[in-house]
Amino acid sequence: MALSTLLRRIPATAAARRSVLRSSPQSAAFSTERPVARNASFASWTDDDVTHFRNVLGRPEAVLTELDDTVSYTVDWLKKYKAQSQHQLVLKPKTTEEVSEILKYCHARNLPVVPQGGNTGLVGGSVPVFDEIVLSTSAMNSVIDFDEVSGILVCEAGCILENLDNYVAKKGYMMPLDLGAKGTCQIGGNVSANAGGLRLLRYGSLHGTVLGVEAVLADGTIVDCLSTMRKDNTGYDLKQLFIGSEGTLGVVTKVSILTPPRSSSVNVALLGCEDFEAVQRTFVEAKKHLGEVLSAVEFMDRQSLDMVLSQQDWHKDPLETNCPYYILIETSGSNSTHDMEKLEGFLEEAMGSGTVVDGTVAQDTVQARKLFGIREDITLALSSRGYVYKYDLSLPISQYYQIVEETREKLAPLGAEVVCFGHLGDCNLHLNISTLAYNEKVFNEIEPFVFEFTSKYRGSISAEHGIGTHKPSYLHLSKSANAIKLMKQMKTMMDPKGILNPYKVLPEVVEE
Amino acid sequence: MALSTLLRRIPATAAARRSVLRSSPQSAAFSTERPVARNASFASWTDDDVTHFRNVLGRPEAVLTELDDTVSYTVDWLKKYKAQSQHQLVLKPKTTEEVSEILKYCHARNLPVVPQGGNTGLVGGSVPVFDEIVLSTSAMNSVIDFDEVSGILVCEAGCILENLDNYVAKKGYMMPLDLGAKGTCQIGGNVSANAGGLRLLRYGSLHGTVLGVEAVLADGTIVDCLSTMRKDNTGYDLKQLFIGSEGTLGVVTKVSILTPPRSSSVNVALLGCEDFEAVQRTFVEAKKHLGEVLSAVEFMDRQSLDMVLSQQDWHKDPLETNCPYYILIETSGSNSTHDMEKLEGFLEEAMGSGTVVDGTVAQDTVQARKLFGIREDITLALSSRGYVYKYDLSLPISQYYQIVEETREKLAPLGAEVVCFGHLGDCNLHLNISTLAYNEKVFNEIEPFVFEFTSKYRGSISAEHGIGTHKPSYLHLSKSANAIKLMKQMKTMMDPKGILNPYKVLPEVVEE
Repeated sequence: MALSTLLRRIPATAAARRSVLRSSPQSAAFSTERPVARNASFASWTDDDVTHFRNVLGRPEAVLTELDDTVSYTVDWLKKYKAQSQHQLVLKPKTTEEVSEILKYCHARNLPVVPQGGNTGLVGGSVPVFDEIVLSTSAMNSVIDFDEVSGILVCEAGCILENLDNYVAKKGYMMPLDLGAKGTCQIGGNVSANAGGLRLLRYGSLHGTVLGVEAVLADGTIVDCLSTMRKDNTGYDLKQLFIGSEGTLGVVTKVSILTPPRSSSVNVALLGCEDFEAVQRTFVEAKKHLGEVLSAVEFMDRQSLDMVLSQQDWHKDPLETNCPYYILIETSGSNSTHDMEKLEGFLEEAMGSGTVVDGTVAQDTVQARKLFGIREDITLALSSRGYVYKYDLSLPISQYYQIVEETREKLAPLGAEVVCFGHLGDCNLHLNISTLAYNEKVFNEIEPFVFEFTSKYRGSISAEHGIGTHKPSYLHLSKSANAIKLMKQMKTMMDPKGILNPYKVLPEVVEE
Repeated sequence: MALSTLLRRIPATAAARRSVLRSSPQSAAFSTERPVARNASFASWTDDDVTHFRNVLGRPEAVLTELDDTVSYTVDWLKKYKAQSQHQLVLKPKTTEEVSEILKYCHARNLPVVPQGGNTGLVGGSVPVFDEIVLSTSAMNSVIDFDEVSGILVCEAGCILENLDNYVAKKGYMMPLDLGAKGTCQIGGNVSANAGGLRLLRYGSLHGTVLGVEAVLADGTIVDCLSTMRKDNTGYDLKQLFIGSEGTLGVVTKVSILTPPRSSSVNVALLGCEDFEAVQRTFVEAKKHLGEVLSAVEFMDRQSLDMVLSQQDWHKDPLETNCPYYILIETSGSNSTHDMEKLEGFLEEAMGSGTVVDGTVAQDTVQARKLFGIREDITLALSSRGYVYKYDLSLPISQYYQIVEETREKLAPLGAEVVCFGHLGDCNLHLNISTLAYNEKVFNEIEPFVFEFTSKYRGSISAEHGIGTHKPSYLHLSKSANAIKLMKQMKTMMDPKGILNPYKVLPEVVEE
C-alpha cells in the first residue's frame, strides 16, 4: 500500500469557508423552508434602545447597526438561512455581567434575542429569522484556567475551538471534540448545539465531558454551575439544560470541560470496500483489533469523494482502486509501537479476508491531515457546486445506507446528486442532496420521506446538527408528544416571554 | 514483587451486606440528622387505597403492608435512615403502565411516594421519612434488547447491576459502571442517583453513557426518551433531568445504555507510598505510562486497610511494608502483551525513583479480585465496627488529603477513627469517621466543618452519593442561590404537589 501523492496544499478551512460565503452560487436561493410569522407580542428595537446599549457596553465596536457590519451575523455561512429584515442590531458584550444587563433590558422591553457563537451551524439556529437582536459571544474569548494535573479547562464561551485545542496541546492535552468548523466555531456555540464531530466515538458527548457551565437566563439571571469537579452530585445537573438547547433556555457564557491527554501516536488509514456489508464487517473488525486505541471510524461513499475531486482540484484520489465505499480509521494512543502492531494486525485480517479491497496508511501527520481533509471538505465541495439539502441522521447500522439508496432511487429522474458520509462509529450519517439550484420538486421528494424513514426505524432526525429553524415541525418524528410537551413547559418556565432564540427548536403546535 | 497469600474466600457482597443489616451494632442509633416535619398537605394512605392498589396490580405479592414484609424497604442497608412511621405500604409494579396508574392515583389522592431500587444508597434517598408509599422497581427486571454490534443495552429499571454485567459479558461487553453494591443495586436507582464508582475514570459518568430513559412523572405521565442512538440532538435532552435527581422529578422505568467492549486483558497492582506527595506523583506517572489502558486509580490510607483487617479476618495485609498510603491501579485493554509492557514500564519508573516503596501485581483474576475486595470492603468493615459518619467529597488534588488530616486532628481528643479512601483518579474521596456508637460531640466537630472546608476550595459536598435527606441544608455550599432557585422551579413544574420523594435533595428554604 502506498499513498498517492496529494499535490496541492489544502487551504485552511476558515479561509475556504469565507471564500464560499463570498461566491456560493446558492446565494440567490435562500431557503424558504418552514416560514413563520413574526411573533406580534415582541417589540422592535429603536434608536433609544441602541443608545441604551451603547451606554451599557461603552465600546463603539460592541454595538453594530450598519448593514455592512451586521450582514455576516444575519446569514449563515452556507447562505441558506438569512434574517428577513434589513433592520439588524448586533451586540458584542465582553463579560457575563454585560450579557446579563442586555438580557435584563431585552426581557423588560420584550425584545427577542439570538445568541450567536461562530455562526457555523447548519440548521439556521444562530441567525435571526426577522429582526431579533444578535448577541454575539465573539468578544468573550479568554481562557480562565487550566489545571495541568487533571486536564480541566475553564474558558469563556467565545473561545474558538481550534485556539483552545492549540492552547491545551502545549500542555499535552486535546479538546474532546473536533469539527470541520473548528477554525471558526466557538466553544459556547458547541455546547449550546451539543456538537458531536470526529472524536465523539472515543471521548463521548459534551453531556459527559462538559463539567460546568455558566449561563444567563432570559431575564438576565446569572446561573453559575461552573463546577470543575469530575464528580458532583449536588442537586439537579442544571448545566445539562444548556447543552444542546440551542440557546433557547439561556446564553452560555463560560464552560468548564475535561480535556483528555493528547495521544503521542496517531495513525490514519483509508480503506475501500466493495459493498456496505463489508463496511460493517470492517467496523466490527476494527473494534476488535484496535480496541482502546480506536479513535475515529468515518465513512464516505464514492459519490462524496467524486464531489470533492470535482470541486476542489487540490485533492487527488487517494487510492488506485475506484471503490463504492470508503472507511477512514484513526487510532490514537500512547505507544506508537503498540498502536502500529494493533493496526497491522487489523489490516492483515481485513485485507487478507477481502473485506477491504484497497487501502492506504498515512506515513506522517501531513498525509494524515490530507486523508482527513478529503472527508472534512465534502461539505465545502457540496456548497461550491450549488444548492444542498442537508440531513443529519442517526440510524441503526442496518438502515444506515438503505436510506441513501432509497433516496437516490427516488431522485434519479430529477438529476439530483445524492452523497453520504458521516461518523459510522456513532451510526451518524450526513445525507446530502446536491442540485445546481434550489428545486421545489426535489425538496418535495425528500421531505418528509427522509424524516419518516428515520422515524420508522427509531433513528434520530438530528444526530448532531440540532433542530434550529429547519426541523421544529418534524420534531414529533423523533420525540413523543409527552416529551415535546415537557420541553415546552421547560421553555415557558425558563423564558416565559419567549425572547431567547424564538421560532427555533420547538414546534408551534405539538402534533400527536 | 510477590502477592502474599490471601487465605480465606471473600464472601459475596450481597450476603455480607445482609449479615450487616441483621447484626450492625449501630441499629440502636438511627440518625436524627436534620429532622423535618411531615408535610401537612399530604394525605395518609387508608385501607381503601390498599384495596385500590390490590385491584390495579392484581398479584398479592405486589402490595405489601405487613411490618415483616415492609421493614427491609423502609430502612437503609446501613440502618442509618429509617421511616418514622410503623404504618408502611410497599408497591411492586411490573410494568411502566402500572407505575403510571399508581402515580396517577397518588397524585389525585395527594399521597407521597418514594421510588426505590436496590435501596443501597448512603444518604437516605431511597427510604420513606414518614409514611410515604414505597414504589419498588424490583419486579421490573427484564432485559429488553441488546445490540451486539453497537453494544447498546435496553432494560427495565429493576435489573440488578451485576446481573446486567454478567449478561453483557457473555456478548463481550461490560457495564460502564461498577460499584461495591453491584450485587444488590438496580440500574434505575443507579441512573436516578447518577452513581459513579470504579469505572467512571475510564468510561465517564452516566450523563454520557446513558442514551435513553423512560420515566413516569408525578402525575402518571409516561415520558418516552428511550433513544438507542449515540447521537440524538432533537430538542432538549430530557433524559438528563432524571439522571441524578434522586427520584424527585420522575420514576425511571427503562434505561438504554452504551456498554463498552469487555477488555480481554485486565491487570491490577497495589502500590504503597510514604507520603501523599508521592501518591500524586504516582498518579501522574500512571496517566503518562498507562495512557488509554488505565481504567481505575483507587486510593486508601493505612487506617482504611487496618479497619478492614481488624473487622474481616478473611483479608490479609497484601504488602510486607506497612505504608501510610496505598494506590490500587487497574489497566484494561485488548492486548495483554502490550498492557503488561506498559505496566512494567510504569512500575519500573515508579519503584526505581522511590515514589512507590512496595507493591504487588495480581497474577490472576482471583488475586485481582482479592486486591479490589479490600478496597470494596472498607465500607462494610466500618459499618461492622459501630457508627459511621460518611462524607463523599470532590476536592482539588492538593486538598484531597488535607481535609483528612485536619479532621483527624480535630477528632483526636474524642477517640474517633478517621479513614479515607476513594476514587483518586476522579478527585473523589470518601471521608469516614468511625465511633463505637453515635456521638453528638463528634458530629458537631465534623459538621459543618467538612462541608465548609469543601465549599472553600470549590469542591463538591456530594461527589457521587447524592443529597438525599442528609444534605439538603448544605446544598448552598456547593450550588449558588440562583441555581437552587432554578432547581426548585423545575421541581414545582414537574411535581407541583411535591409527592415524589419528598423532604429530599432540595432545601426547604434557599439560603443566600
